[in-house]
Amino acid sequence: MDLINFVVIGYGGMGSYHAKDLIQESNGVKVVGVYDIDPTRLDLAKENKFKTYETLESVLADETVEAVLIATPNDSHKELAIKAMKAGKHVVCEKPVMMNTTELEEVIAISKVENKTFMVHQNRRWDNDFLIIRDLYKTHQIGDLFQIESRVQGANGIPGDWRHLKQHGGGMVLDWGVHLLDQMLFMINSKLKTVSCDLSYVLGDEVDDGFISYLTFENGVKAIVEVGTTNFVKLPRWYVRGFEGAAVINDWDLSGKIVKQTGTIDHHNLVPIQAGQGLTKTMAPPSEEATTTFEITEVPSDFDNFYHNFYDVIRNNAEPIVKNEEVYRVLRLIEVMFEAAEKKQTLTFE
Amino acid sequence: MDLINFVVIGYGGMGSYHAKDLIQESNGVKVVGVYDIDPTRLDLAKENKFKTYETLESVLADETVEAVLIATPNDSHKELAIKAMKAGKHVVCEKPVMMNTTELEEVIAISKVENKTFMVHQNRRWDNDFLIIRDLYKTHQIGDLFQIESRVQGANGIPGDWRHLKQHGGGMVLDWGVHLLDQMLFMINSKLKTVSCDLSYVLGDEVDDGFISYLTFENGVKAIVEVGTTNFVKLPRWYVRGFEGAAVINDWDLSGKIVKQTGTIDHHNLVPIQAGQGLTKTMAPPSEEATTTFEITEVPSDFDNFYHNFYDVIRNNAEPIVKNEEVYRVLRLIEVMFEAAEKKQTLTFE
Repeated sequence: MDLINFVVIGYGGMGSYHAKDLIQESNGVKVVGVYDIDPTRLDLAKENKFKTYETLESVLADETVEAVLIATPNDSHKELAIKAMKAGKHVVCEKPVMMNTTELEEVIAISKVENKTFMVHQNRRWDNDFLIIRDLYKTHQIGDLFQIESRVQGANGIPGDWRHLKQHGGGMVLDWGVHLLDQMLFMINSKLKTVSCDLSYVLGDEVDDGFISYLTFENGVKAIVEVGTTNFVKLPRWYVRGFEGAAVINDWDLSGKIVKQTGTIDHHNLVPIQAGQGLTKTMAPPSEEATTTFEITEVPSDFDNFYHNFYDVIRNNAEPIVKNEEVYRVLRLIEVMFEAAEKKQTLTFE
Repeated sequence: MDLINFVVIGYGGMGSYHAKDLIQESNGVKVVGVYDIDPTRLDLAKENKFKTYETLESVLADETVEAVLIATPNDSHKELAIKAMKAGKHVVCEKPVMMNTTELEEVIAISKVENKTFMVHQNRRWDNDFLIIRDLYKTHQIGDLFQIESRVQGANGIPGDWRHLKQHGGGMVLDWGVHLLDQMLFMINSKLKTVSCDLSYVLGDEVDDGFISYLTFENGVKAIVEVGTTNFVKLPRWYVRGFEGAAVINDWDLSGKIVKQTGTIDHHNLVPIQAGQGLTKTMAPPSEEATTTFEITEVPSDFDNFYHNFYDVIRNNAEPIVKNEEVYRVLRLIEVMFEAAEKKQTLTFE
């Protein structure tokens, strides 16, 4: 295997994670060095036995370096990506890819001119919880899914420093939203028609600390995408409904269940239950014969590993799994979400 | 106690529930008879030892009858209420009070002219789950609540016959929505500013079989109110967030928890967890010292029983707990929700 030599630019949480765990020779990629503007991070990289570069120019001038991984604050992605591609390097870029679609258009144009691969690390397309929901969507195990709710809720607030600041592309829409929206658009093969969004500012930061968005697709699917950082109790990671059942995945541990309708519900002979200060037939549990419950089981990904695909894109002219048009569409959606939130209006999309 | 004699009009599910369980002498009210247009229901009332009336006119002509309970299909409430009040009877009316606000204005006007009490049985103001959330809202146990989500989800579809039909006021917004919206507006002491609503038609009925609505209030509270009848897995009945914690009530059984923030979260020293195919500090669970978890405990109602209050309104000139202005506001909200859903727009309210 003709390994692709990488330099990691930005040795923070994500950069060091790429260097240690993701850029693996088994995938055809190899870390040959690390660059960071912060000397203490460079010291750490040295401790971790990485060759270090003192300047960006020295990385770009190094002809043994074929690609860079950009894992710096979001507002620096554009300049770094352009400089790297102009210096002849392929680029893997952390999410959110850019601050806005105008920046991304420029970067994509340069990628074409320079004939260098620019690919965004939308790693959560490989999350097991997402793969399970995507499998339900594709296999129709509980019928066509018509309602898909994706929530990630924490209680730690916004971590770190630059993620609190607008100028660096902070906030949760750009941080976690970009993952959940990417998963949703990657899964649902239909035009997105309407977008509503409400941002939260519970922490008093200048950037959003969470949001709730409501999306409706041309094929009838409705989606809720929600991120929270002040949620001391969590709602399930995924909640989906199909015409023949529903499923829930509670958390990263993949606890949850799939409930499939197996019998017919006799609407005229329902037995009411006492619920609060009233009786209800409507909200009584379905009879035992009417449903079967399945455990959640992992499903394998039906597409290649990110870095292995990146290798194949460069060496074997393969189709990238994360396409720049897809990334562009998500960023465009994010812009419309911000607009919808500001205007307190439902906006049309595609 | 000078008991108020009631005739139950409409001996279906709700009417028979009032007759058997709610209209109790201990509350100052007594069932003296039953009227229904369906002879089989009248036979059942006889079996249950109730005096029966063959015609509405015979009920209205009976001077021993001081009040009627209207528990008929929604489109018949108006005519029955007006006839009863004109015949000198006080009226308790099942929800949804009327088909629209125009009808309700007419009925309220007649109540004033005839000087008869007209009071709507919004019984779910007394639901234990609601009283617990209302108590959290009022006592600020987990700080000011800023997000309140109220969901009722079943899998039995729409029960019965007339609830499937538009002309009778069928559909879930009018059936269950009216309860959840009434609770929300009764609890939140602020103007409602914006309303979004998406109706579901999963069952293919001419009426909605559920809805998701998003409400924002002038005091900053945001609320989600949702009803579903094709949900084979349920989200929690209540999910609320305050500035110092969050709470969940899973179901009518009041299982759930209240989590209160007790310590300070150090945003700069969070320990990341592996979550799917990535690391996250943001979504790591808060440290054990940072929160305390409490069980859900029942709280007593701080207002009187419905029928006891009705008695006091008539005999002692008490303030009604369910006020017609409140019921009117909920019905107005329902109209705006239908409009918002049709236009696919967020609408302003008050």
